[in-house]
Amino acid sequence: MKQRVKAIYRHLEGAADVIVFSNSTDPHIDMSFFYATGLTDGLFEGCTAWLFPGGRSEIVVSALEEEAAKKSGIPLHLYRNRDERLAAMKQLLRRVRRIGINGSEITHRAFLELKKLAPKARFTDVAEAVMKARLVKDDSELERIRRACDIASRSFQQVLGFIEPGRVEGEIAGELVYTMQRNGASGASFRTIVGSGPNSAEPHYTAGPRKLERGDFVVIDFGALYEMYHSDITRTVVVGEATSEHREMYDTVRRAQDAAMERMRAGARGKSVDAAARKLIDSTKYKGRFIHGVGHSLGLAVHDGAGLNATSNVVLRPGMVFTNEPGVYVPGFGGVRVEDDILITRSDPEILSSAPNEFLVVG
Amino acid sequence: MKQRVKAIYRHLEGAADVIVFSNSTDPHIDMSFFYATGLTDGLFEGCTAWLFPGGRSEIVVSALEEEAAKKSGIPLHLYRNRDERLAAMKQLLRRVRRIGINGSEITHRAFLELKKLAPKARFTDVAEAVMKARLVKDDSELERIRRACDIASRSFQQVLGFIEPGRVEGEIAGELVYTMQRNGASGASFRTIVGSGPNSAEPHYTAGPRKLERGDFVVIDFGALYEMYHSDITRTVVVGEATSEHREMYDTVRRAQDAAMERMRAGARGKSVDAAARKLIDSTKYKGRFIHGVGHSLGLAVHDGAGLNATSNVVLRPGMVFTNEPGVYVPGFGGVRVEDDILITRSDPEILSSAPNEFLVVG
Repeated sequence: MKQRVKAIYRHLEGAADVIVFSNSTDPHIDMSFFYATGLTDGLFEGCTAWLFPGGRSEIVVSALEEEAAKKSGIPLHLYRNRDERLAAMKQLLRRVRRIGINGSEITHRAFLELKKLAPKARFTDVAEAVMKARLVKDDSELERIRRACDIASRSFQQVLGFIEPGRVEGEIAGELVYTMQRNGASGASFRTIVGSGPNSAEPHYTAGPRKLERGDFVVIDFGALYEMYHSDITRTVVVGEATSEHREMYDTVRRAQDAAMERMRAGARGKSVDAAARKLIDSTKYKGRFIHGVGHSLGLAVHDGAGLNATSNVVLRPGMVFTNEPGVYVPGFGGVRVEDDILITRSDPEILSSAPNEFLVVG
Repeated sequence: MKQRVKAIYRHLEGAADVIVFSNSTDPHIDMSFFYATGLTDGLFEGCTAWLFPGGRSEIVVSALEEEAAKKSGIPLHLYRNRDERLAAMKQLLRRVRRIGINGSEITHRAFLELKKLAPKARFTDVAEAVMKARLVKDDSELERIRRACDIASRSFQQVLGFIEPGRVEGEIAGELVYTMQRNGASGASFRTIVGSGPNSAEPHYTAGPRKLERGDFVVIDFGALYEMYHSDITRTVVVGEATSEHREMYDTVRRAQDAAMERMRAGARGKSVDAAARKLIDSTKYKGRFIHGVGHSLGLAVHDGAGLNATSNVVLRPGMVFTNEPGVYVPGFGGVRVEDDILITRSDPEILSSAPNEFLVVG
């Protein structure tokens, strides 16, 4: 993982003698801990990763997770209790003057703990550099994201036959998660969304007791977790029979997605990708009904550092992975969102999510 | 939720004009946001809950989550972008001098954001008060924890027949999670552990490709999530046929659990509960093989604020819920852990997890 540590230091504005990633209690875990160590399994509550200029790193880890931590090949400092943990950290902080922390993922309390152990040191927030490094995925990260996309895409196809009038939203979510797990996922990327009928018009709805009815739009937003990496896909289908309204809405969203895709090239700015999709939707009768950003980067987190929205200045680079997910929401009637995971390359963008995205009527 | 807000203020050491719970990007969400608002669904990234002395509260929330947030019945400040979000927060910070933050669950960056909005205010970490309030569950919290325990217990019984030689660990985990979801869980509390044979001796192992063999111990550590509340149960079974060694290990752990249970009464200190289980195990040939604390509190988080271990000074009170989970781990051979969820009451502790805990040989 030397290259990853080096990448973080390369993006640093100032200088640091060490960068510390500090995990608190779940869910307050710094996902950059896994980026820097390459570990892809385990929880590592209370553990810290120490990154040095030049690429070397060390881990302070509970003796209970020694076996899991060993897989990193990184030197370990084992502790059996709080005192030993603090002692190991204190030793690593000796003769260190400039300490980088990841302000976006360390709790305020964990920061104060470090500050107390090194009262004379200067602390800098290196979250920006960490984010920039994590945005560009290396081969082993891409391999995992590809697997996560494959598993989710395949699983969606397998549960398509399960989506029919009378099914409960939550049931479909459960079936999809189970199928992903049987296909090799270690879990779902996030709480699966199955929003049917009017619920499909709420972008942040999850899944409830509502039964699918003929004529419903069903928005299914799901993803597989594979060795700590996420996929994030949305498909919208119609139950029973479709009207021309269904077709028009769906077609509008798919065209917006294609327009955004056209812009997903190295050198483009995030806001230009968003603008392309928005412009298309706003040129139709669905003007103003696309109420969120067009995408976000994807990796060790579902929202992995950068958004593609109206104010996004991120410059797309080869190796970055973003969702492309325009949507149209008509309160009371329903919503359509289609979301794919896109790898930015030196030439054409590559769609990693292969689940069918044509207009589908099911059940 | 006035009573919850009041409970937090009651536990405060100093004074505060307002307490702010601030959510960053998932997974960096302050679970106390859900405690204070009573919301049991939704993600609420970037949202903040504002708690005032007297019990009143307000929420600053993205317009995208208006529908979900409304269910709280709490006044909302809606924002559509970053600027509106900061403006709403700035307005709430006017004329406020002493601000409480939850240092254990706010990121350092979110803290700095607040500080910048209120440069003259004094900030206090109220994590201790928040934890103390959250430790004692009210009726609606207990109802959810009971459901989470029921779902997990019932599901375990339903998948018992699935555990047999040749099954892959990950398959059993998937089956169990699916069953919990079909029984009404919104998901798993955490990544389900299915450790078989030598893997059962690693307390933090999750689940892998290993196939169960006759003579294996299988440690299954699982829980259901129900309306944001967690259960956390462990059962250990033997596959195929059991030896006297299996029985002796299992019996030792169960007796340790009973010894801890005896101490799980209002007024007892956490460390005395741990000591009871430890003393029993250390009086057998498994001396020194109980390598973690005997339990932890349970609620909106799996590790909900207080541990029951050798140094724990928490005083047990009616309404608190703790796991009771002694274990014995023999590297190379296997491990046994039995974990139940226990409600502290005015009289005898109540076991909330009803999955069978007798010595079981399956397959």
